[in-house]
Amino acid sequence: MGRVTARRRVSHLAADHSTERPETLVVEEPLEIRVNGTPLTVTMRTPGSDIELAQGFLLTEGVVARRDDVLRVQYCRGAESNPDGTNSYNVLDVTLRADVPPPDTDVTRNFYTTSSCGVCGKASLEAVRLSSRHSPGDDPTSVSTATLTSLPAQLRSAQKVFASTGGLHAAALFTADGTLLAVREDVGRHNAVDKVIGWALEADRIPLCGTVLLVSGRASFELTQKAVMAGIPVLAAVSAPSSLAVDLATQSGLTLVAFLRGDSMNVYSRADRIDR
Amino acid sequence: MGRVTARRRVSHLAADHSTERPETLVVEEPLEIRVNGTPLTVTMRTPGSDIELAQGFLLTEGVVARRDDVLRVQYCRGAESNPDGTNSYNVLDVTLRADVPPPDTDVTRNFYTTSSCGVCGKASLEAVRLSSRHSPGDDPTSVSTATLTSLPAQLRSAQKVFASTGGLHAAALFTADGTLLAVREDVGRHNAVDKVIGWALEADRIPLCGTVLLVSGRASFELTQKAVMAGIPVLAAVSAPSSLAVDLATQSGLTLVAFLRGDSMNVYSRADRIDR
Repeated sequence: MGRVTARRRVSHLAADHSTERPETLVVEEPLEIRVNGTPLTVTMRTPGSDIELAQGFLLTEGVVARRDDVLRVQYCRGAESNPDGTNSYNVLDVTLRADVPPPDTDVTRNFYTTSSCGVCGKASLEAVRLSSRHSPGDDPTSVSTATLTSLPAQLRSAQKVFASTGGLHAAALFTADGTLLAVREDVGRHNAVDKVIGWALEADRIPLCGTVLLVSGRASFELTQKAVMAGIPVLAAVSAPSSLAVDLATQSGLTLVAFLRGDSMNVYSRADRIDR
Repeated sequence: MGRVTARRRVSHLAADHSTERPETLVVEEPLEIRVNGTPLTVTMRTPGSDIELAQGFLLTEGVVARRDDVLRVQYCRGAESNPDGTNSYNVLDVTLRADVPPPDTDVTRNFYTTSSCGVCGKASLEAVRLSSRHSPGDDPTSVSTATLTSLPAQLRSAQKVFASTGGLHAAALFTADGTLLAVREDVGRHNAVDKVIGWALEADRIPLCGTVLLVSGRASFELTQKAVMAGIPVLAAVSAPSSLAVDLATQSGLTLVAFLRGDSMNVYSRADRIDR
């Protein structure tokens, strides 16, 4: 749709000069995701791979578990169009197979709270355990340190838009021997991960056994949850993890690698999958 | 509460050696915000400054506009406690003054969609315009380039936890002559901004005329919205802005500075506030 970047005028000010010039920026637009016609959530995303994004989101929220759970994904028309009558391409409706229960419209709360034990980190972990249908714990995959340290450079060279805007997060899926399967960029890091996982759902590759998910930033609880829900055995992040991300990885049998930079890395859980 | 950082065991792997050691990580825990007893949202945050966070969130969502709109903020007890009966300190209830309308529980959608013109960037901008009670457009503040370029170093030296964990976003509020007013850190960048703005609400400094808000990462629509809602005239980001952040700044009369690094910066809107 050609809406991934946009041009805006900018004043560049430096110590000894200033210039006016056009600059390329990453586009940010709202996307409303509906399920069976009912609005579920709105996310601010970079347009492109929207259908993957919606399906990846539904998978990582526990609404769907495999490709066959989704009958159809399509942009809405009519009331959701721009003021001039054209389709905004910002509303997607996902039709589930008839026997797939539609989500609670308060779906995003499910991973943070359970009624049994209040709101705390333990409850968040328990909610993922109860929702996950593809646990990575039993996956026998192993990955070499040499493969892992090669991934960030592969991600950077595959990032198309970041180089021109500096404004995008990226997520990439690799096989355990370091072959790139898919890379997606987005202004929101959770969206980049949902797009990659949605790609895998469309390719009927869920659960994602034998894969490594690399993210360009930090490893939060939310990103770790998404990896667990997709059955990914190894999550690698370029920056720091949070306490709850480490706790979730430990509970789920996910190998969590962070500070993956140069030829070194930190491994927080299931280090037995890393071959030296 | 001593819950800002936590220790976990980590395997550090480098090319020629590996070590096992404890590492300091940033804590991530859910916080449920209730208004008049009704659950409104759950955010994953770093504990600390929770009361500021809740009030800043409500201000930037348009629920409250000034200190007097909030009667009381307190941690819930009882049903929201840990399984062992102790308070989890993860549920906050905000009591509004009797004549302040409580929010729609679907409040977070308000900034992304309006019923009149569907879901698109224009609708998001329009929603902020309708909700904002403290527009920065008329603020006569000016800031020198020398002051602006001094801010990132001030922010870094004030960041207490980042140095030990590498896992935190930061937001800081300065006067137009570069005096630091408040700095807050959080695993979520939106939370860091809400904490700073909540600090200002408690100090009865809303609208934040004559101030500069600095954020450690990128300038998204959401962070720009928060600055506009608090009446901040200048938003400066260390990294890139998105298209919709620039459009919102332009519409609102906010000065948006990004790529603030070394002695240079890009100015995307209201460059007349920058003194060379």
